[in-house]
Amino acid sequence: MNIYDASVPVFVHFLGSLSKILKKAEDHCAAKKIDPAVLLSQRLYPDMYPVLRQVQIASDSAKGACARLAGVDVPSFPDEEKTFPELQARIQKTIDFVTSIPREKFAGAEEREIHIKAGPRELHFNGVSLLETWSQPNFYFHLTTAYAIFRHNGVELGKPDFLAG
Amino acid sequence: MNIYDASVPVFVHFLGSLSKILKKAEDHCAAKKIDPAVLLSQRLYPDMYPVLRQVQIASDSAKGACARLAGVDVPSFPDEEKTFPELQARIQKTIDFVTSIPREKFAGAEEREIHIKAGPRELHFNGVSLLETWSQPNFYFHLTTAYAIFRHNGVELGKPDFLAG
Repeated sequence: MNIYDASVPVFVHFLGSLSKILKKAEDHCAAKKIDPAVLLSQRLYPDMYPVLRQVQIASDSAKGACARLAGVDVPSFPDEEKTFPELQARIQKTIDFVTSIPREKFAGAEEREIHIKAGPRELHFNGVSLLETWSQPNFYFHLTTAYAIFRHNGVELGKPDFLAG
Repeated sequence: MNIYDASVPVFVHFLGSLSKILKKAEDHCAAKKIDPAVLLSQRLYPDMYPVLRQVQIASDSAKGACARLAGVDVPSFPDEEKTFPELQARIQKTIDFVTSIPREKFAGAEEREIHIKAGPRELHFNGVSLLETWSQPNFYFHLTTAYAIFRHNGVELGKPDFLAG
């Protein structure tokens, strides 16, 4: 087991799931004459993020994890998406970035010291703890919350859409 | 990076999060005079599982993953819980089981062939693909959905409750 195989291809697989979930949500809007901007602004509680932002943060979790494990700069993707096609482009840009990092850059990533600013706190990880207790859980949290918001709003999704890649 | 460290302690950490989330949900019921059975029966859509079942499946994902990686029988936990204390006991039983498996049993788990019945299909994995593309995603899916249902119903939770273990 190595940290490249546990990160890049796994994020790519589940970014693929997210892309297909978004496609079904977009098709749902067309079929039901729902304004896509309205569906993308839905949230489960007033102080939670809307589904559009959940997608952006899932992207951030994936690109942040892979960049930090590889010891390269985390690219900044401005959070300017407003539509399904723009979110699809964000996902593709994320996949393009993480797959552009040479596998060799992940050598020694398991023990790499990684520091993350989280609000007022600075968090300290090595590569394994970053991936397993921070990046992957955060990524699945936002992917699942996006799925949950769409399901709550009647988009016909099932667990295979989440798992299939 | 080895598959024991990527599975048992990670599941234990996030089962700890689930336990604390349930405690906050139970306290919320007491403070707001909500029947705990009513809160535990909430769901995000009529054909989704209620939060009580989400907790049981998160438990199943963790125990199933660790047992299969170690090549030991998956213990059957009857889905008979109805209350917060019973769900807490289920989580503790899950933690007790996964931590009872000797670390040595995970030797070679990366390449172990694992077959899972999923409805009419049989799925084929090795240890790494089981953990990374099935068990962990499923575990986080149900943990996050439990969190989302509680949040949607007004329980005051934040991301730290999900991440803190």
